[in-house]
Amino acid sequence: MISNMNNSVENVFISQDQMKTEFLRILLSLDFSALKAEKCAEIFTVNSMEGVYTHGVNRFPGFVNNIKEGYISSDADPTLVQRTGSLEQWDGNSGPGPLNALFATDRAMEMAEKNGIGMVALANTNHWMRGGTYGWQAARKGFVFIGWTNTTANMPSWGAIDYRQGNNPLVIALPFENEAIVLDFAMTQFSYGKMESYKREGKKLPYPGGFDKDGKLTTDPVDIIETQRALPIGYWKGAGLSLLLDIMATILSGGLSTHEISKDKVEHNVSQVFIAINLKNLKNFPAIDTSVHQIIEDLQKSEPENATTKIRYPGENVVQIRNMNLKNGIPVNIDIWKQILTL
Amino acid sequence: MISNMNNSVENVFISQDQMKTEFLRILLSLDFSALKAEKCAEIFTVNSMEGVYTHGVNRFPGFVNNIKEGYISSDADPTLVQRTGSLEQWDGNSGPGPLNALFATDRAMEMAEKNGIGMVALANTNHWMRGGTYGWQAARKGFVFIGWTNTTANMPSWGAIDYRQGNNPLVIALPFENEAIVLDFAMTQFSYGKMESYKREGKKLPYPGGFDKDGKLTTDPVDIIETQRALPIGYWKGAGLSLLLDIMATILSGGLSTHEISKDKVEHNVSQVFIAINLKNLKNFPAIDTSVHQIIEDLQKSEPENATTKIRYPGENVVQIRNMNLKNGIPVNIDIWKQILTL
Repeated sequence: MISNMNNSVENVFISQDQMKTEFLRILLSLDFSALKAEKCAEIFTVNSMEGVYTHGVNRFPGFVNNIKEGYISSDADPTLVQRTGSLEQWDGNSGPGPLNALFATDRAMEMAEKNGIGMVALANTNHWMRGGTYGWQAARKGFVFIGWTNTTANMPSWGAIDYRQGNNPLVIALPFENEAIVLDFAMTQFSYGKMESYKREGKKLPYPGGFDKDGKLTTDPVDIIETQRALPIGYWKGAGLSLLLDIMATILSGGLSTHEISKDKVEHNVSQVFIAINLKNLKNFPAIDTSVHQIIEDLQKSEPENATTKIRYPGENVVQIRNMNLKNGIPVNIDIWKQILTL
Repeated sequence: MISNMNNSVENVFISQDQMKTEFLRILLSLDFSALKAEKCAEIFTVNSMEGVYTHGVNRFPGFVNNIKEGYISSDADPTLVQRTGSLEQWDGNSGPGPLNALFATDRAMEMAEKNGIGMVALANTNHWMRGGTYGWQAARKGFVFIGWTNTTANMPSWGAIDYRQGNNPLVIALPFENEAIVLDFAMTQFSYGKMESYKREGKKLPYPGGFDKDGKLTTDPVDIIETQRALPIGYWKGAGLSLLLDIMATILSGGLSTHEISKDKVEHNVSQVFIAINLKNLKNFPAIDTSVHQIIEDLQKSEPENATTKIRYPGENVVQIRNMNLKNGIPVNIDIWKQILTL
């Protein structure tokens, strides 16, 4: 489902260096320390390089806005609330979501290094942008990663017509070759951003993605945007998963739940969980790479439904898109790029 | 989606005691120790009591068959392969799946008691029957539980027409009042058992559940049973989740993956993961119950799509079904019950 094109009439192609330089300049003007500006600019740039424009360059102006409006404290650091064995609670102190998540992933890995498994529950943090970032971060260092976040309410409970649940993205990642297998998905079948693109292009969704005003499943993005009844993945199953992810993030971190976050119009102070599992100390560690290879090889032997279908593992596209964008530059909607240059 | 009726022309109603007594008699005849027979009979009985007939009484004859055919070793105990901090690998030694899973859940809780979080990865075990069993087990003792199993291949990869992936059930549970919230779901939208019932009753599925021979989504169980292309939950998302659950179970336990399990016609020696998280030592523990209540209360304020729709949390039905079956007896297909009496 990943396309290399930003959905726009006109794109400019920006090199990785040029993009990061602009982000750095802006973040430094917003009271980020040099180190934090560097880390944060890197995340937004890599997300764009790897094709996740919605949570990279396209989202950068909104991120800056949230800082200017005081929802994100650019100089806040997470503080330890409590350590109980291999489980730690941290307060994100309303700091930048990507920096807090980067930190929490590192802490979970440190604990896993010592104890086999490590878990950080993070309260009062902000949107982590692309969840896959932290999956890649841990998997590249040889860890299995499981993490999730709650969000503001943006999905009806199963059988309901009003918003009460978040789309609470879940990330699972593990090392593969020198890259990673990274699954990063929200609990709604299609994001509103994705449905808006289909709408702009006058296209139907490839599969049913929500309900129309008669309560029927539809592939028409116009109808779903109107009813605001986006489909949870797996119908009642994804609605259930969203609920459990929210409850776990809330009680493990001592932070806010989706219904509390939703009291404010702007999403902030969300709750997140980061689990890292250390593979290196396992007796079967030498066999793991072969084992994952065999599973992927078997997957690739699948008989495709037609000649043009390629069976892929989650994250497989990322490497290709990264290489293409490295070569051609990162496609950016010209209006968004102009806006960034004025920030 | 849970109905109290076993799908049969004729049911008998069996009391909890009567059912457990029969199971005990049979298990004792199969070289189960008294203690193991007791635990195993209890699990099959409770699963039936709580409405999960497919993984309770209906499955018991098949379980006995697998023992007689040597796929399940009734006297095997799990053995520790390795301890690395709060992560342990165990070999299930082809023992009874429910007993191995019961043990692994207890071990994960013991580790979590000490270290905040505990994880057991179990190789060479067998079908755990109802995954929710272990969620209830941990949640009732105050733990958050996350667990999953791989299975034999029974679901095509996304875009494929042949079976390469398992439906790999995932369970997430946590304490709620004196009961629990328990999410227990497989990666296919509907099980073949469920689709067979709809077929027998000449009914369509309530939502699309797979592909017909033209590769179109359909609600017709007859078409899906013919193509064997059951729908992964959330289309490509559930297919991705199934793959990652299989890889994690395989590499963390050092056991067999779905594609290896599938080399044999009879599913056995599967791989499983059990994670327990201790809530009792958290600073915010006293506030957790209220916090979960508030989330559930908010969920229940949802505006239902019509007057007959009730918005429920996962596991909510279980308590009602348990009470009903306690009062009326457990409904059992008369042919299945006759078969059990002859075992």
